[in-house]
Amino acid sequence: MEDKRATLVAADLEGVFLPEIWIAVSEATGIKELSLTTRNIANYAELMALRISILRTQQISLRDIQAIIAGLEPLPGARAFIDWIRERTRLIILTDSFYPFLTPFLPKLGYPTIFAHQLVTDGQDMLTGYTLRVQDSKRVAMETFHTLGFRTMAFGDSYNDISMIGAADTGLFFRPPESVMTDFPHVGVAQTYAELQEAMTDFLAEA
Amino acid sequence: MEDKRATLVAADLEGVFLPEIWIAVSEATGIKELSLTTRNIANYAELMALRISILRTQQISLRDIQAIIAGLEPLPGARAFIDWIRERTRLIILTDSFYPFLTPFLPKLGYPTIFAHQLVTDGQDMLTGYTLRVQDSKRVAMETFHTLGFRTMAFGDSYNDISMIGAADTGLFFRPPESVMTDFPHVGVAQTYAELQEAMTDFLAEA
Repeated sequence: MEDKRATLVAADLEGVFLPEIWIAVSEATGIKELSLTTRNIANYAELMALRISILRTQQISLRDIQAIIAGLEPLPGARAFIDWIRERTRLIILTDSFYPFLTPFLPKLGYPTIFAHQLVTDGQDMLTGYTLRVQDSKRVAMETFHTLGFRTMAFGDSYNDISMIGAADTGLFFRPPESVMTDFPHVGVAQTYAELQEAMTDFLAEA
Repeated sequence: MEDKRATLVAADLEGVFLPEIWIAVSEATGIKELSLTTRNIANYAELMALRISILRTQQISLRDIQAIIAGLEPLPGARAFIDWIRERTRLIILTDSFYPFLTPFLPKLGYPTIFAHQLVTDGQDMLTGYTLRVQDSKRVAMETFHTLGFRTMAFGDSYNDISMIGAADTGLFFRPPESVMTDFPHVGVAQTYAELQEAMTDFLAEA
């Protein structure tokens, strides 16, 4: 063990450990268009512009969204799986979601390290935009982990995880939609945490 | 808050959250030379070569060292301070220690994300060397955090923290020895977690 290269696991958040936040907001508000995610619109900027314009039109503030999120729970087994990972290697969650949305989940997940983005709001607490820490942040993060000498594994559920999965030494999808599997047939797929644990056990056992 | 740049805190481990492991090993084994740290010998490679040769001469195995470490506790208040940080921002611990030494501390610290190094042992479980993930790992880590768009704060207690502190947007020493303060008089100093919390509160409040 001791003379192997240090490992690090990068994981997506929504659809992997958490429910899709925007879908929950869509259900709570009854606004169907808010249920669209990167699973439906691969272009993230386009998707966010749509979400922001809908929220403005419907006069839904950040506080309103946070109130909805506060009622959500992680996916069943997520916390136990996160603990299992952190007992064995480093876990960094790479998400295109936003810190103001994730705060209510932190205690429920055991305060894992999360690389997310920031939101921009106006004086009326209405979303006016967002600030990406860096462009193509998931891919750039994976490259920095390699620069730091880590052997990496990555998993996520959708189009915005492709660059992260592709940059990892071991990468696979977790419960992806049919469209993602069809577009990227060469990427392995896990449907349960048990399957991810199995793949991770193999990854950690490699020299 | 929401439109500020994302923040990340980088912290040293030994002398900040944990006792100095090699000093504990020195006390437990009664071998005085093992109490030397980067506080005494700034050249890390030189220091490690000395430690490895002493352990070999004295026939002290990795398992022997791990047994000593298993009896150690984090510094008083360390866990509460780590929790305080993780409720407010991202915490990544940057240490020149080794994963096989740190495992016993993980549950006591709440499994924070730690970037450390690996050890090389022979068939007799004797240390034969170590593998640095990357040269000058603390400075390189800080640069990658900036590449990822984070505004950063860093603190540590000794010579091997200078590059990390210098690369951070806000950096200071925590309980450094006199020699370190004399050699780097321009770096701020905190003597208690309360003082670090105060500095961090200011750092997090900045736009």
